Amino acid sequence: MARGLNSVQLIGTLTQAPDMKYTAGGLAILELNLAGNDHVVGSDGQLRELAWYHRVSVFGKQAEYLVDQLAAGTPVFVEGRLNYRAWEDASGQKRSALGINAVRVDVLTHGPRKGEPTVLDARGQERLKNALNHVTIIGNLIRDAELRYTPSGDAVTRFVVAVNEQYRDRSGQDQESVHFVEVNVWRELAESCAELAKGDPVLVIGRLVKDNWTDKDGNRQYKDKLEGSRVEYLTRGPGGGG
Amino acid sequence: MARGLNSVQLIGTLTQAPDMKYTAGGLAILELNLAGNDHVVGSDGQLRELAWYHRVSVFGKQAEYLVDQLAAGTPVFVEGRLNYRAWEDASGQKRSALGINAVRVDVLTHGPRKGEPTVLDARGQERLKNALNHVTIIGNLIRDAELRYTPSGDAVTRFVVAVNEQYRDRSGQDQESVHFVEVNVWRELAESCAELAKGDPVLVIGRLVKDNWTDKDGNRQYKDKLEGSRVEYLTRGPGGGG
Repeated sequence: MARGLNSVQLIGTLTQAPDMKYTAGGLAILELNLAGNDHVVGSDGQLRELAWYHRVSVFGKQAEYLVDQLAAGTPVFVEGRLNYRAWEDASGQKRSALGINAVRVDVLTHGPRKGEPTVLDARGQERLKNALNHVTIIGNLIRDAELRYTPSGDAVTRFVVAVNEQYRDRSGQDQESVHFVEVNVWRELAESCAELAKGDPVLVIGRLVKDNWTDKDGNRQYKDKLEGSRVEYLTRGPGGGG
Repeated sequence: MARGLNSVQLIGTLTQAPDMKYTAGGLAILELNLAGNDHVVGSDGQLRELAWYHRVSVFGKQAEYLVDQLAAGTPVFVEGRLNYRAWEDASGQKRSALGINAVRVDVLTHGPRKGEPTVLDARGQERLKNALNHVTIIGNLIRDAELRYTPSGDAVTRFVVAVNEQYRDRSGQDQESVHFVEVNVWRELAESCAELAKGDPVLVIGRLVKDNWTDKDGNRQYKDKLEGSRVEYLTRGPGGGG
């Protein structure tokens, strides 16, 4: 398996004052709800502003240090990692979600001179117009990529990348975990990624987007995915990334 | 001082087979010479391909592991850090340089299907057309920013950011170092950055470029700088990044 790389950089504004929680063990967890607009060139060659809303979790001392500095509308820079969680819900169904755990958070200032305007969204929350949403992962495909075409004829290829993480936990133990990241790529990139197969090691750069749909019980469901703007094939084999 | 952030992501091709050296203490150092083209929108709104050549240093086991996998033309992804060095040359003059130390290097594959064409440069070296050159730093200005205008009327603001680094060295000692990174920003961003003052904490995202000039003795000199595409002001003060 390729050695995992898992890097998220976001710049956005807080949609509301952050929520502080404590685990039973006393660990502080601060939940930041961030919003921003990405600037993306669509299939028609036109530049579009696409809104995103993502939640970032901050832990421990950093959470306690930040809580008094943050309010609705505060712009922040986040460096973090994608965090995959899987669980069974009350009805016994398997569920999973991709979140963002902060490695560091820096509070930005803005004002007229700094050119950081925001838009008010439908709920009256400030969303940063010129946001940053830069995700880089390295991992291996868990099954073959699937190419489909939308009704309007756009090619879209979907694949899931397993990103390994090795880390030392709070008690000093070496731990391993795997984060499963769903990737969508579009148009020309979709065609060139259609042959990616199970096990292939890849580097993907893109932006985190929230997919939403209505499930069979009529509930609105959300899932974070990586919309890839760049995919590189890593070398396989004993000496390589495979 | 703001807690430093120092992150470099490059994708480029090797212009030549890498050089392996060993320090007196037996540490392996592999020097990679990478080349790529950035795609940058100029003052006239036109997209330009701008070539870059950067040297990346890889250390220890990673160097020994990589040396046999790399040849002229091999495409690689590098995650690394800017590394500032200062010294006195033979004539007693102070000199400094910014280099890149690799944190990790991944060998990429390319071929017709993967859409990674290269151009042959004037020396017959392969340079990757669609390269990646993404640098992110956080630090403090060491003096006030300077705004100038080029003869053609373009605003350019120059400032130097001190990026702190805390790390554990090979003998397990905690060490601190400071990397001085020269930043240039152009046009509207130059005007909005003109008021940046000594001590201000900033986040800068940009690409690494090589400035070159002829010194008074007629020798060609080169210096790496960060061409900033985005500058954010961090909050100052006891609770903030200042």
